[in-house]
Amino acid sequence: MRIVELKVHSIAIADPPLRSSYGLHAPYALRTVLELVSDDGVTGVSETLGGDAIAQQFEALRPKLLGADPFRLAGALLPLIEQLPGTSLDRSQTFHPPGTNPLDANARLYSAIEIAALDLIGKAVGQPVCDLLGGRVRDEVPFSAYAFYKHAGGGGESGGQDNDARDDEYGEALTPESLVRQVQRMIALYGFLDVKLKAGVLAPELEIETIRQLRVALGPDVPLRIDPNCAWSVETSVKVGEALVEELADGGYLEDPTAELAGMAAVRARLLAAGIETPLASNVAVTSFADLPEAVRASAVQIVLCDPHYWGGVQQVQHLGKICQTFGLGLSMHSNSHLGVSLLAMTHAAAATPHLSYACDTHYPWQSERDEIVAGGRVPIVNGCVRIPDKPGLGVDLDYDQLARGRERYRTCRYHMRDDAAEMRKHVDPDWRRVLPRW
Amino acid sequence: MRIVELKVHSIAIADPPLRSSYGLHAPYALRTVLELVSDDGVTGVSETLGGDAIAQQFEALRPKLLGADPFRLAGALLPLIEQLPGTSLDRSQTFHPPGTNPLDANARLYSAIEIAALDLIGKAVGQPVCDLLGGRVRDEVPFSAYAFYKHAGGGGESGGQDNDARDDEYGEALTPESLVRQVQRMIALYGFLDVKLKAGVLAPELEIETIRQLRVALGPDVPLRIDPNCAWSVETSVKVGEALVEELADGGYLEDPTAELAGMAAVRARLLAAGIETPLASNVAVTSFADLPEAVRASAVQIVLCDPHYWGGVQQVQHLGKICQTFGLGLSMHSNSHLGVSLLAMTHAAAATPHLSYACDTHYPWQSERDEIVAGGRVPIVNGCVRIPDKPGLGVDLDYDQLARGRERYRTCRYHMRDDAAEMRKHVDPDWRRVLPRW
Repeated sequence: MRIVELKVHSIAIADPPLRSSYGLHAPYALRTVLELVSDDGVTGVSETLGGDAIAQQFEALRPKLLGADPFRLAGALLPLIEQLPGTSLDRSQTFHPPGTNPLDANARLYSAIEIAALDLIGKAVGQPVCDLLGGRVRDEVPFSAYAFYKHAGGGGESGGQDNDARDDEYGEALTPESLVRQVQRMIALYGFLDVKLKAGVLAPELEIETIRQLRVALGPDVPLRIDPNCAWSVETSVKVGEALVEELADGGYLEDPTAELAGMAAVRARLLAAGIETPLASNVAVTSFADLPEAVRASAVQIVLCDPHYWGGVQQVQHLGKICQTFGLGLSMHSNSHLGVSLLAMTHAAAATPHLSYACDTHYPWQSERDEIVAGGRVPIVNGCVRIPDKPGLGVDLDYDQLARGRERYRTCRYHMRDDAAEMRKHVDPDWRRVLPRW
Repeated sequence: MRIVELKVHSIAIADPPLRSSYGLHAPYALRTVLELVSDDGVTGVSETLGGDAIAQQFEALRPKLLGADPFRLAGALLPLIEQLPGTSLDRSQTFHPPGTNPLDANARLYSAIEIAALDLIGKAVGQPVCDLLGGRVRDEVPFSAYAFYKHAGGGGESGGQDNDARDDEYGEALTPESLVRQVQRMIALYGFLDVKLKAGVLAPELEIETIRQLRVALGPDVPLRIDPNCAWSVETSVKVGEALVEELADGGYLEDPTAELAGMAAVRARLLAAGIETPLASNVAVTSFADLPEAVRASAVQIVLCDPHYWGGVQQVQHLGKICQTFGLGLSMHSNSHLGVSLLAMTHAAAATPHLSYACDTHYPWQSERDEIVAGGRVPIVNGCVRIPDKPGLGVDLDYDQLARGRERYRTCRYHMRDDAAEMRKHVDPDWRRVLPRW
């Protein structure tokens, strides 16, 4: 079997005005959809981060991909995932918007190609992706509700080309009370059993209050996690950890409270000294294998957030899971704004990774069914879980009309690169810039 | 696809009187050959350690294997590879003959089942095993000459049932000079480019002299490694490391000079303090994933010897490779007395493990072509390398007449459990027992 065609589709999807320490989500999230076509006419699909830059990088790989055997892509593309060694500081995601760390660019490219190749292989041999690499350890994968402080308004800009953007399904949420209503609605729709709050947006006291109100509203059995994306100093991180010691217990965690491994290690040491065992999770201080030795040595991180889009694909996530299991770390999964192809890739990766010990993140509830490119519409999330489809490969086919719609919108919209800080300046505060720590 | 039949074949193969710190190889090495048959009539094969105990353990797994989907064995058998956490001391191979550490028993069982399932899957989908799990990174795998001090005599005992045992192809080697002749003959036959000396048998001065004579005889470009299986004290290990600093440079290593991680760490620290960077390798202090955190923390080991028979199969070896790559350790491969099915499993595992950074060990030259169970005879080793066959699965079919011969010999021989110390008492020294450190 040989790859005879590569198709790179840049699409734009409606995205609500979600806030984080990086700034404000633009009206459109950008995605890239890859198709690898084999000489016997089977097509493998994947979805990853979008924008002009990554699409050009895929095009540059075309000569290596055409003619390659999908079963042997690791050998053909090994240099892509063999990264230069570097210090944690060199590699850190801390000062880059998600998905733009240049030092992880190769792993992101390789991820999308590996997943499309696995979809192709699965379709060719009649097996789901999760059963191609050792076999599934679970038939369904739990995801958590991913709550954001947000402004009112749907994903598009009013009028003109953007009037097909999604409705404002959840409304404004810039207070603890409105955030709790957002989570309750999301749980009612999807049945999530875990909740993650994207923090680093309001003053820490308000975010602490939000978690407390979530605990009261949801009862004692829903694990809660809070993620300010490094917005806090070590001092503030410790204070939040102390304030939320009960709320984050029993399956919750404190994710990237402060910047860099040294900061995380200091927070961990001070919390432990205060008798607080709330684990620290990370997908900012630790974004690649090169970060792990120092993270382990310094006890800076107790839970790593994998993501098959970032870490080099499904097999690299399995490796990461074994590393975490071996070194006593937990494993959760990171997410970006995405459609159903990515959701299923994440689900297959999680199903084939025994050590995955926490419900995965997903932005999926924030995307619109009107933008879905999966034939048959949105992938169901039931009781907070996505089931592995009883079909080969990832278990999805593309809706090519919808794909064409996404491509056309990418062509006509003004957003071809993620820049949450620019959006923040445009819509909220003309002088805004990302400051770490902010509190 | 479902597994409808499990066949467990215990066989005995001729083995020469090789010496190590464990004692003396018995006239027969014991192997187990597994066959997994699918409902569409495809058979997957693997070979592993032998003896009555492991055969009974496979039989006990029969209810879990029959009806299972080979693509989903990881999920079905996960408890087998999920081992209880334990200290390094609990888990250490140090005080057990190779392949008998009870705490790694599950990983050994799982290995053989995974490899047979991969052979079955490969045959079913028309792909070599090394291309089923991410794809090969090399088409041929280098092995090293594995030199042993040995007594004269072939593998069988003279007369009677044993007279079909192999000839004494290499003769006695209990001096530096005869050991050099053994290596030269082995290199002439197989083209090996690396040499490993099994040490811990003669006084350290004689083993140092052996390495020095090997260096003179083979010239400067052949990496040399020496492995006394923990026979030395820390003091002696350091002295040998100092004496052989030049001979073990440039791709060589000092393997398990002394017992346990604390001892290895002490040797490493003292060698470094003396300015000697010879890396320490291990397949005794480190035999499972549970050993790795302390090995890394204490800098006790710089090279881990994987072995798909011990570590849980091909995928677990890939995980181990990624761990070693991530934490700056080298990766080599361990061997036991084996036939061609195991040799190909080792070759496929090595081909699919990018980080493998040293030539693999193999006992294959010590086994007889008269015992080979692979249809068509011995697997060729050319220029020190085994090529991945251009066939699906492992690339071998069984010779069932030869398999029956091995079974019959197992039935009639008196050896059903490896006990190198008992052989030593029987043939060399009636009072012999394994003492660590001996020197």
